[in-house]
Amino acid sequence: MSGSTDSTDSTDSIGVTAAQGFRAAGVTAGIKASGTPDLALVVNDGPSFAAAGVFTSNRVKAAPVLWSEQVLKGGRLAAVILNSGGANACTGPAGFQDTHTTAERVGAALGVGAGEVAVCSTGLIGERLPMDLLLPGVGLAVGELSPQGGEAAAIAIKTTDTVHKTAEQRSPAGWTVGGMAKGAGMLAPGLATMLVVLTTDAAVDAPELDAALRAATRTTFDRVDSDGCMSTNDTVLLLASGATGTAPDGDEFAEAVRLVCADLARQLIGDAEGASKDIRIEVTDAATEDEAVQVARTISRNNLLKCAIHGEDPNWGRVLAAIGTTDAAFDPDRLDVAINGVWVCRDGSVGEDRALVSMKEREVVITARLNAGAASATLWTNDLTADYVHENSAYST
Amino acid sequence: MSGSTDSTDSTDSIGVTAAQGFRAAGVTAGIKASGTPDLALVVNDGPSFAAAGVFTSNRVKAAPVLWSEQVLKGGRLAAVILNSGGANACTGPAGFQDTHTTAERVGAALGVGAGEVAVCSTGLIGERLPMDLLLPGVGLAVGELSPQGGEAAAIAIKTTDTVHKTAEQRSPAGWTVGGMAKGAGMLAPGLATMLVVLTTDAAVDAPELDAALRAATRTTFDRVDSDGCMSTNDTVLLLASGATGTAPDGDEFAEAVRLVCADLARQLIGDAEGASKDIRIEVTDAATEDEAVQVARTISRNNLLKCAIHGEDPNWGRVLAAIGTTDAAFDPDRLDVAINGVWVCRDGSVGEDRALVSMKEREVVITARLNAGAASATLWTNDLTADYVHENSAYST
Repeated sequence: MSGSTDSTDSTDSIGVTAAQGFRAAGVTAGIKASGTPDLALVVNDGPSFAAAGVFTSNRVKAAPVLWSEQVLKGGRLAAVILNSGGANACTGPAGFQDTHTTAERVGAALGVGAGEVAVCSTGLIGERLPMDLLLPGVGLAVGELSPQGGEAAAIAIKTTDTVHKTAEQRSPAGWTVGGMAKGAGMLAPGLATMLVVLTTDAAVDAPELDAALRAATRTTFDRVDSDGCMSTNDTVLLLASGATGTAPDGDEFAEAVRLVCADLARQLIGDAEGASKDIRIEVTDAATEDEAVQVARTISRNNLLKCAIHGEDPNWGRVLAAIGTTDAAFDPDRLDVAINGVWVCRDGSVGEDRALVSMKEREVVITARLNAGAASATLWTNDLTADYVHENSAYST
Repeated sequence: MSGSTDSTDSTDSIGVTAAQGFRAAGVTAGIKASGTPDLALVVNDGPSFAAAGVFTSNRVKAAPVLWSEQVLKGGRLAAVILNSGGANACTGPAGFQDTHTTAERVGAALGVGAGEVAVCSTGLIGERLPMDLLLPGVGLAVGELSPQGGEAAAIAIKTTDTVHKTAEQRSPAGWTVGGMAKGAGMLAPGLATMLVVLTTDAAVDAPELDAALRAATRTTFDRVDSDGCMSTNDTVLLLASGATGTAPDGDEFAEAVRLVCADLARQLIGDAEGASKDIRIEVTDAATEDEAVQVARTISRNNLLKCAIHGEDPNWGRVLAAIGTTDAAFDPDRLDVAINGVWVCRDGSVGEDRALVSMKEREVVITARLNAGAASATLWTNDLTADYVHENSAYST
């Protein structure tokens, strides 16, 4: 369920405050020149503080990622502070100290240790954060904390997002998984930084949270590849308050986490920078799932194909040219490709009439059948547009 | 030396006819709807017919690539026929038969075997060639063959190229290496198909041609990466007539081949589809040359960075984010990056003032110093522009 407008007067408890035991806030600290909200705080009121996290696999990691990775090793989080308006990446030891100071300020205000506070940042790389604005903002956010603050928090983490993004799953057993996301991108790789905070009031320990989160991200955020660029800041966190006192069925819980991740991932791709088409790439009949993912990712990163889709041109030759650069098992003369259900390529050659393909809808489905096995994978990407070029040419200026 | 206009009334002997013992022609067979020249023929009049070839590493190979790879196994070529207006890729056994028939028609007209005729095609994938137009065109081309035909041939192989591309190197020892290229792209990978034919009148046997050609392409065409997309048709051929009777010094010959390849590669990047900036990426102080190339290629494929360069934005954070996705040896805290000579990033953090960087010129140099060894590599790419999107959205329609 996506927030489609940015009003904060909703009294619904959504996103990170959909689950009991959580308060959140989103405020304007003045980090962004635009004067829009730029600082979010999510607080876990317990009784449990179990947590798990997944981070960018980029070797150039922002200071808040280095910090939060360390914090999560304890499997415990009392709060998450998130700022937009600056990534605090490539800022050296001073930037790391800024992250540390932020966590200490949050910890002091809440009466918890800095080591129980995760920090997330998003924005331009290579610039220090304005700590003289950020630190007073922490006090402001603490004062605004509310069990209805999920929407305000989701709004405050936006960068180039056109809408804020929240999702929830409620179990008949009484517990809930909720979450928020920002980013016109994805976990790894990521177009812009993706930040996600998930919360639950189920009673789940840290190892189980970690397992559920890793399983969920593997087939959701990890299979969204908007432009092949991996962020230095991508972070996905899952916090459990245990406020319902209910220990969920493991499979049901994992599925709820996966559904919330899938919902948020779909919202991310639907809001990707400058995109006019959401492209679902289905690779079937691969020898292994890894090879299916490899082929899907290679197709998703083909700029020529992404331009063709933008032009509503069912240019299946570009799909084959992309597949041909992989080392997945396939015979070039046995490749089949469908676009929106029309098998325009059969046996590596011309199939059904491409004129039969309609590409007027925003969603476009490309199916590549490798005829090499029984494995499959689905990955989402976007088309490549002049708007994407424009938005990313002017980003830092 | 690039041809800057498309007049064919030059009597200079340039490109593939710069060397003695070669005739060439470029004619309009009617394959292209535009009515511009679309069929080129290069003939070796001997006395030697030694030849070598390098082809796309794409596993989905066009029919002419499959054919020419076979032909080159004999190390001997009497002629090359090249058409624009259709790639003859993903056309199945019938498409391969079209290539075979074309080679037979050329062979019959010249009195040589089809197995001594290489075939190159470029254009849209997945459509059969109009053989009823192409085959009469062969007769036309044979009639037009001339020792001054190098420029007409270079013009006839253009697709989205805005200028035709030729180059020559003349040795004081009396022999010459010349060549022509088409493509707004590169060997492997390739944006659009790259076709290159090189000729020499030096007396060089096939194994030596092969060694010189592979060494040259490895550091020239293989280090041009306009948009990360690899063509199904890329081909580079080198033919030796031995017409001067001079056996060159091996190193001098290899260097002449490299210089012609480098010249043509630079012309390709300067004419890349929709580009407004030519970007030279220099990776230095890498542990190995392979890692330097890997890092340079990863930087060259980062769409966000390519957009930033288009916007004349020295966004070095995107360079670091790209480097971070590789597995090359480096310490994130010891990376240095210069843009047009200004070291905007030192030790993985903010360096000199980015305002000092001027990016008004078409050529932009990005230097990434890994501080992990003594190896280096240079690779060329382009910016990503709205014009690129436009050109490739509308290509097949």
